[in-house]
This record gives sequence, C-alpha cells and structure tokens, in this order.
Amino acid sequence: MASSSPENYSDIKTPERCYVDFCLVPVGTASASVANEVAAVQKLLRASGIKHTMHSAGTTVEGTWDQVFTIIGKAHSLVHSSGVVRIQTSMRVGTRTDKTQTAEDKVKRVEDILGSSS
Amino acid sequence: MASSSPENYSDIKTPERCYVDFCLVPVGTASASVANEVAAVQKLLRASGIKHTMHSAGTTVEGTWDQVFTIIGKAHSLVHSSGVVRIQTSMRVGTRTDKTQTAEDKVKRVEDILGSSS
Amino acid sequence: MASSSPENYSDIKTPERCYVDFCLVPVGTASASVANEVAAVQKLLRASGIKHTMHSAGTTVEGTWDQVFTIIGKAHSLVHSSGVVRIQTSMRVGTRTDKTQTAEDKVKRVEDILGSSS
Amino acid sequence: MASSSPENYSDIKTPERCYVDFCLVPVGTASASVANEVAAVQKLLRASGIKHTMHSAGTTVEGTWDQVFTIIGKAHSLVHSSGVVRIQTSMRVGTRTDKTQTAEDKVKRVEDILGSSS
Repeated sequence: MASSSPENYSDIKTPERCYVDFCLVPVGTASASVANEVAAVQKLLRASGIKHTMHSAGTTVEGTWDQVFTIIGKAHSLVHSSGVVRIQTSMRVGTRTDKTQTAEDKVKRVEDILGSSS
Repeated sequence: MASSSPENYSDIKTPERCYVDFCLVPVGTASASVANEVAAVQKLLRASGIKHTMHSAGTTVEGTWDQVFTIIGKAHSLVHSSGVVRIQTSMRVGTRTDKTQTAEDKVKRVEDILGSSS
Repeated sequence: MASSSPENYSDIKTPERCYVDFCLVPVGTASASVANEVAAVQKLLRASGIKHTMHSAGTTVEGTWDQVFTIIGKAHSLVHSSGVVRIQTSMRVGTRTDKTQTAEDKVKRVEDILGSSS
Repeated sequence: MASSSPENYSDIKTPERCYVDFCLVPVGTASASVANEVAAVQKLLRASGIKHTMHSAGTTVEGTWDQVFTIIGKAHSLVHSSGVVRIQTSMRVGTRTDKTQTAEDKVKRVEDILGSSS
C-alpha cells in the first residue's frame, strides 16, 4: 500500500455501495422496552426511501456509504429529540468491489449450498 | 452494587436465557466468498437443535447462555477444521430478567406500533 | 415521539458529536495478517487530524458524526485500493446530549469508582 | 468442509484460545451513566484472574473460549443482580490457529509497521 501517500488522501472517496446492519439502543430511559424507538426509526427509514429490512436483532440498510450513514445519524438525532440523552448503536458494515450482491443474494447463496448438500 | 463482594463471585451463574446475533467472518482465505463457511455453520446449528434464524447480515440464536456460546464456539472450531486459520466474529448479546421475549415477539411488538400509527 | 412527522424528517441533522470504535477486517486476502491494512488506516487517521486511539481490538475515533463516518468510509476505500475486494467492519457508536465526555473521561470515571471502593 | 458430517458434531470442542472485546450496556436504567456497572464488571474480572484490558469503548479479555464466555455471562448476571433488567452487549471475538498472538503483540505489530515507514 506504498502508493497511498498523505498528499492524495483528500482524493479518496467513500464507497459507492455498502450494507450496514445496525442495532440502536437507547440508554438511560426509565423503560426497558426499546420498541417505540425502533418503530420511530423504521418510520424514518420508510420515509427516506432507502432499502432496509428489519429483523429481530437489528435492521439492514443498503445504499451508498454517505446515504446509509446519514440516515443512521438522523436516526440518532430523531431518538435524541424524543428525550433520550444517550444512544449506543452496534453496526456491521460491509463493502466489496468484486461484485454487487444484495441482502437477498447473500441469503439465497447460502440456501442454495444447503439445498444441494442435503 | 455494594453487595457484590469478591467472596461470592463464584456463586454467580451465567444467564438462563439470552439471544445472540452473530456474524462469523473467515480471515485469510483466498476467496472473498464466505457462503461455504456460513452454510457449514447453519448445518451445525440445525444438527444441534438450538433455535436459530439466519438473515442477510448474521444469524440469531436463542437458548441458555452456556448453550448459545458453546454452539458458537463449536462453529469457530468447525470452520477452523476446514482450513481457515483466523476467524473474526461480531456479536450482539441480549439478556433480560423482566420478561421472556422471543425473536418473533420483538419484531411483532414493533410492527404493532407501526401498524397502529399509520 | 408523536411530533416526528414525515414532513420534517428532512430537517433532522446528524449528531454534532459522536465516538465510534471500529475494527476493520479485510476478507479474501491470502494472508491471515491484517496488520498492514490496520497500519495504512492509522496513517490515514493521522493525516486527517481527527482524534483517534488504537487498541488491540480496534480504534476509537471522536468528532462530528459526518467527520467520523467520512474518514472511516475513506479507510474502506483506501484498503480496497490496495487490492482487498471485501471488507467487514464492526462498529460501536455512541452519542449523548446530556454532556460532553471524552474517551479519557470515560476511563477516568470508572477508575475513580474502582479506586474509591478498594 | 465435506468431512463435517452431523455424526461427529458432538466431538467438536470450543477453541482453546480466543480474545473477546466487549461493551456491556445496561438498558432501562434511570441514569444515562454506565460507569457503576462497568466498574462492577472490572472488579469481577480482577477477582477472576483472567487477563483483561479496559479501554474507553470496551474491555478485551483473553483466555480459553469457555473461560472468557463464562466470565462475561457472570458479568451479565452480576449487573442484573444489581437491579438492571435488560442488558445489551456487543462483542468482537477472534480465534486463530496459525499462531498465538497476545493483545500486546497485535498493537506492537502495527506500531512496528508505522515506525519503519515514517
């Protein structure tokens, strides 16, 4: 990676495509339930038009790097605006340059292997 | 938490119930595809009888703390046994003592809020 | 959270301050070592001037939401530009509105509690 | 991975060595501070004798798979016993079979690369 000299760092762009699976946890709320906050974030995602899928342990969002992290940043601000003073989010972020693979493609790939081996 | 003196640490048990959402990544394989390793882990989970659900960014497992982490540890060993020398896994782990809530319950709770507000 | 109607989602800004602890894993490289990639990312962080601290399991970055995620996005692109076709990163992200607390403050807070109780 | 037939799954052992970097978050507490809970967990780790290092975004623990996850499970139970009804923990877990590398080794490896290139 010798060619990455400091001079050209400013030319680096963020990835054109990524997926982020995130789980947002409000901290310091009196209630142990987080369903209201999760629902508010789902509404934000729907309104944004970004591709997203909720599962029991998080939500997967797909788009450009900047789109995805801007909408999750807005999700933090939205939940803060409802009175939650602290938020902790865990994320899994994936990028690849060899091919375009959607969330559905990934699951199907594994299911095909499982189907053919049984 | 003043009552937790060192003397009685040995009496503490691991939680009777937890969920773990995990994403296992083989490192140092020549291929960028991880589908074979994910499929092998799915077979292990099926054979174990533990409750689990795969999604595009990971797999959620539910059971006692010891059951869940033993099976994920075996998953690491299984993938190592196929020749992968390094594995990196990210996990989200949840425990609660106020109620028993399954993965399906959590999703339904959010969908109910979304449904009633639209 | 009744006041968050779709109409004003566009007004929501990303947080002014956050910390992100991230661990970037190159996938599909022939080598199990990730030290070269981690070092390249450290150089990028240094050149950027953003506050960051490396530890054995990741690197913690502090700044505005947009600064932090832009630099981590650039880190993905930098590692891709060296020939790595797939990257998987896990992140912990924290925001709070009740006070400004640096990474050092957080550690000191815990050490003070530990010191006063022993 | 054709040799991993269901019949011999029961012979698989959990890894002899791993590191886990974890961040435990109490949910549904009235306070946004988590320092008391973090301190209680540090005391548990100290009393256990397991190798561990705290940083501002988590704690890294090293040992056998079973040792590490048993102590983190006890940490959950300890925090629950103080009245916290819900806990969410994010973890990064690493295992490798090609060599034994401590947390200090990993940081030194990167610093050596950074030092030799500047």
